[in-house]
Amino acid sequence: MNSPEVLAGEIMGRIDQLAAISETPGALTRRYLTEEHRRANQLVGEWMSGAGMNAAQDAAGNMVGRYGGANDSSPALIIGSHLDTVVNAGKFDGMLGVLCGIACVQALRDAGRRMAYPIKVIGFADEEGVRFGTTYLGSRAVCGTLDPATFDRTDANGITYRQALLDFGLDAARIGQAAHRAGEVRAFLELHIEQGPVLEALNRPAGAVTAINGQTRLSVTVTGEAGHAGTVPMALRKDALAVAAEGVLAVETVCAQADDVVGTVGILSASPGAINVIPGDVNFTVDIRAREDAARRDAVAAAIRAIRAAAEKRHCIVQVTVLHWAVSAPCSESMIAIIERAMAAAGVEPSRMPSGAGHDAAAMAEICDVGMIFLRSDGGISHNPAERTSQEDIAAGVSIMLNVLDEMEG
Amino acid sequence: MNSPEVLAGEIMGRIDQLAAISETPGALTRRYLTEEHRRANQLVGEWMSGAGMNAAQDAAGNMVGRYGGANDSSPALIIGSHLDTVVNAGKFDGMLGVLCGIACVQALRDAGRRMAYPIKVIGFADEEGVRFGTTYLGSRAVCGTLDPATFDRTDANGITYRQALLDFGLDAARIGQAAHRAGEVRAFLELHIEQGPVLEALNRPAGAVTAINGQTRLSVTVTGEAGHAGTVPMALRKDALAVAAEGVLAVETVCAQADDVVGTVGILSASPGAINVIPGDVNFTVDIRAREDAARRDAVAAAIRAIRAAAEKRHCIVQVTVLHWAVSAPCSESMIAIIERAMAAAGVEPSRMPSGAGHDAAAMAEICDVGMIFLRSDGGISHNPAERTSQEDIAAGVSIMLNVLDEMEG
Repeated sequence: MNSPEVLAGEIMGRIDQLAAISETPGALTRRYLTEEHRRANQLVGEWMSGAGMNAAQDAAGNMVGRYGGANDSSPALIIGSHLDTVVNAGKFDGMLGVLCGIACVQALRDAGRRMAYPIKVIGFADEEGVRFGTTYLGSRAVCGTLDPATFDRTDANGITYRQALLDFGLDAARIGQAAHRAGEVRAFLELHIEQGPVLEALNRPAGAVTAINGQTRLSVTVTGEAGHAGTVPMALRKDALAVAAEGVLAVETVCAQADDVVGTVGILSASPGAINVIPGDVNFTVDIRAREDAARRDAVAAAIRAIRAAAEKRHCIVQVTVLHWAVSAPCSESMIAIIERAMAAAGVEPSRMPSGAGHDAAAMAEICDVGMIFLRSDGGISHNPAERTSQEDIAAGVSIMLNVLDEMEG
Repeated sequence: MNSPEVLAGEIMGRIDQLAAISETPGALTRRYLTEEHRRANQLVGEWMSGAGMNAAQDAAGNMVGRYGGANDSSPALIIGSHLDTVVNAGKFDGMLGVLCGIACVQALRDAGRRMAYPIKVIGFADEEGVRFGTTYLGSRAVCGTLDPATFDRTDANGITYRQALLDFGLDAARIGQAAHRAGEVRAFLELHIEQGPVLEALNRPAGAVTAINGQTRLSVTVTGEAGHAGTVPMALRKDALAVAAEGVLAVETVCAQADDVVGTVGILSASPGAINVIPGDVNFTVDIRAREDAARRDAVAAAIRAIRAAAEKRHCIVQVTVLHWAVSAPCSESMIAIIERAMAAAGVEPSRMPSGAGHDAAAMAEICDVGMIFLRSDGGISHNPAERTSQEDIAAGVSIMLNVLDEMEG
């Protein structure tokens, strides 16, 4: 059996091979149901077969490999992540989790081992949602939770999801064939790059994810009164930007004081936007995410209260619109405990962290226990060609994943 | 002698006649050394002559009317304001002060009166600085303080100020002929619309200006680090927008706590500007004005200190650039006292206020005592076609100005 270090080297080579399959020359872009999707599936299928799995594309275009268990009718452990990418993507996001799963099965096969339970490795066809503007299409099909209205969504060229499936040789009417029944799945395990700076700051290669955070996105409009910067005394102003500034700081303070809550004002525009004119209109966005839905709701409510109080003080009017809203998907305590024991057995000090970004595990949590392993992202960078996770950290990830398989045997 | 009410009615009619002389159909725009400037001067010159003055255009294109005094060799009182406008201007800004001066002389002439001192009414040719990007060209020529380098400035079409003077029939080399020698000017009196909401809030038609405020304009750049709104914990962020938000509130607080200081952040832009990305770069402007230069310097320093502290807290880098800087031009205490007595005699409760906007009086203060009368602006609106001062308030202004002439006789 090859060492995790050797497997990590092979994974690095495969990552480059996958990254070469791109719609855009010189940059990695691979969207759902494209020719590049087909080629990536084919290559991943070959690797799955080579690792001793039965490999096949499912009714949603996911690539699925199955490695039988000693008790082959028992519920399967699904190991998976996604094979699609954002536009001008990094090459680790998604792919790394699929390749680690294949490498672990390959290690079992090389050692002549089978676990008691069957293992499925799935390369999900669409997680990023780039083509049809809605995420988790691959994992939702596996869960049987895909909304039928989704088939009428169109891409940038006006092609419906339904038509794109037909063009790919698939059929929306048969997508239910990809779904797993209750009792078929024991748990879902996803390894993914962190896409943030926490593990780097902790100087640790890996962490156990506690939950895929819930999220609230707001659009806030503040209406005050534009006026001459020189002639309107401070007490007579209705400065919309000052209200928004209090909002920015309220989001920061409220989230910093809460546990595992992050809040961001990413867009802010002030009108009319002249050096000598008091801003009369300001729009800004708020993005608040938290492991605990109650904590997120509290933070959102506190931020809105602070913005309204700031507006009242300055005789401005505030309008808040909810743009997006998603509940938290917690990882199961038993999977977190298993991953932590697996980390300890691999010589990695266990640490827990929530995931601020969405992952297939959030969709899979609707049908089974889920666990997630994060690997350190250099500089916390992701969705960018500079995205990188070291071979050494990938080796640690393979070790941890193999230990998880053992822990689940117990 | 016509009553101030009748004179105010005549002024209203003249304001409409002047507003009809515009470079842009349907909107009022009249820049320096244009054909419209020439036509406005001609019309104003006719009104000056009609009021009993000797009227002539000076070497800078200012329109000057002189009404002799009983002691005609004594220093003159100059009453003036400007005849040029911003783009899409209101019709009261500048013009009203010139027309009130002419109306007062007309009232003296109708009454067969001369003051002991001669009176000059000047319609300054350029105060707004729209054509050559630098203000007070008319009043600086009258003061002899025009920087010769100004003649090389160009307008939007690349025409130099020197050439524009030639095209208008004037000569940069002779502009000194417009200058007044020390001892020639007793004082400068300007009546102008407030362009702000203070008098309306006080429910008074007029106020005595204490000073044309000094001004500091800053450009502030905050460099933090862009990052994923979901994956970067609050404690690891370098949020440039949070730093800027503290800056906005510091400007507001510092200025609100000081006397006669106003501060504005009029422009703020955050990059990269995506709902799910922490802003890594923010630029914003600061405009701080104050009656007292020391108060302005203190406010600017306090705001910069607060911005630097906010940046240090968040490991961001701040760069501050001074874009513009002008000292305060105080009105003379004797002129303020005269204007207040004139107001009381006109039945207007005296009140004092600084001017947040620049005026010709700021340039004139370099050679003589200056006094300014502000008239109420409806809604505080200016530099806008909706700019308006009521005929009733203009009548009060005429009364006050006539009383000032009497007070200065004493």
